[in-house]
Amino acid sequence: MAATISVFERSPDGGRGLARDMGVRWALEEVGEPYTVRALSFADLKGEAHLARHPFGQIPTFEEAGLTLFESGAIVLHIAERHAGLLPAEADARMRAIAWMFSALSTIEPAIVEHSMALLFERDRPWHAERLPLLEDRVHARLAPLSRRLGGAEWLEGGFTAGDLMMVTVLRRLGRSGLLDAYPNLSAYVARGEARPAFVRAYAAQRALFTTASSY
Amino acid sequence: MAATISVFERSPDGGRGLARDMGVRWALEEVGEPYTVRALSFADLKGEAHLARHPFGQIPTFEEAGLTLFESGAIVLHIAERHAGLLPAEADARMRAIAWMFSALSTIEPAIVEHSMALLFERDRPWHAERLPLLEDRVHARLAPLSRRLGGAEWLEGGFTAGDLMMVTVLRRLGRSGLLDAYPNLSAYVARGEARPAFVRAYAAQRALFTTASSY
Repeated sequence: MAATISVFERSPDGGRGLARDMGVRWALEEVGEPYTVRALSFADLKGEAHLARHPFGQIPTFEEAGLTLFESGAIVLHIAERHAGLLPAEADARMRAIAWMFSALSTIEPAIVEHSMALLFERDRPWHAERLPLLEDRVHARLAPLSRRLGGAEWLEGGFTAGDLMMVTVLRRLGRSGLLDAYPNLSAYVARGEARPAFVRAYAAQRALFTTASSY
Repeated sequence: MAATISVFERSPDGGRGLARDMGVRWALEEVGEPYTVRALSFADLKGEAHLARHPFGQIPTFEEAGLTLFESGAIVLHIAERHAGLLPAEADARMRAIAWMFSALSTIEPAIVEHSMALLFERDRPWHAERLPLLEDRVHARLAPLSRRLGGAEWLEGGFTAGDLMMVTVLRRLGRSGLLDAYPNLSAYVARGEARPAFVRAYAAQRALFTTASSY
């Protein structure tokens, strides 16, 4: 039975794959698990049916057999545990890959989201110009050590893992900010992730939905 | 062989158990795993020895046999996977508990940290007074649905899990802000967590370190 994931009906990012379903789609493509999509309007997100799936009224959710999950990190971990290809078999290496998933979502992403939210919602506030360098510093305080740790390696822990999948997904949220430009190895790391056939398929799938929707 | 965790030598919170080692200590106490502590100065955190353990130069880290881990979420998950008591045995219930761990760290905590960082570091900025209600709104946008989901239940998914451990740990970071007061069921939930014997032991252990240190 195919899994169902919930996604935005209309894309706030214009189909650039920055919404939180992207990592889940990518993981499903990496392991070759088919899935169907439930596209939700912003009104649907706050409706009782969706709140039963996701207490915070967000996307993505994941449903398969009797299981309903929210939180993209948990969904990607679930997919990675059920299929080969996203987590090392050896126990310690597996935990290190999972640590990078938590790192992406709880150490790296908050600074990136705080920066992008300020650009979206505080641009017209009187403090924006003075506060922006402070937010950029917080992003660099995450990117610089990450760049140092990655060094010249291809992925964070040997072969590609769910940790890299989550980290690349999070770094892509920097979008056109230019903040990644100071770290050529991180830019190349993101590009390596985006070049994976599974990423390309996932990106095309999310984009196709919005291309169709925008022609309504 | 006992695990070693790294913690702050001096407590920025004065021993109120708000640093990120608290969840790890609590998990170790819940499962009855003994551990030793490596207390680090702020200079130690940025030294090469610690950066090898933790790329971002933070606490906590966890070392046991050949494994070194960072990220409190990953460490708590590792402990929960190796010992009974923090994750349900049934596969779907186990994943739902893990989803709450991700939710605590990646949906709830960022809003709380953004709010508390503004109180710590932007209090003297000209924008602080005008911006504070905006940050409080973001915290309430997380707490209100969490309160609704918890309802009258004791814990988030049946019995106490690592998801509750992480969620209570994160909610405690609201500290004396008063933001939790609007949600009596969440306040009671946090109090239930703090009343667990394992929490009490973990709290006393982190506090003892600082009481000793402050008498140097």
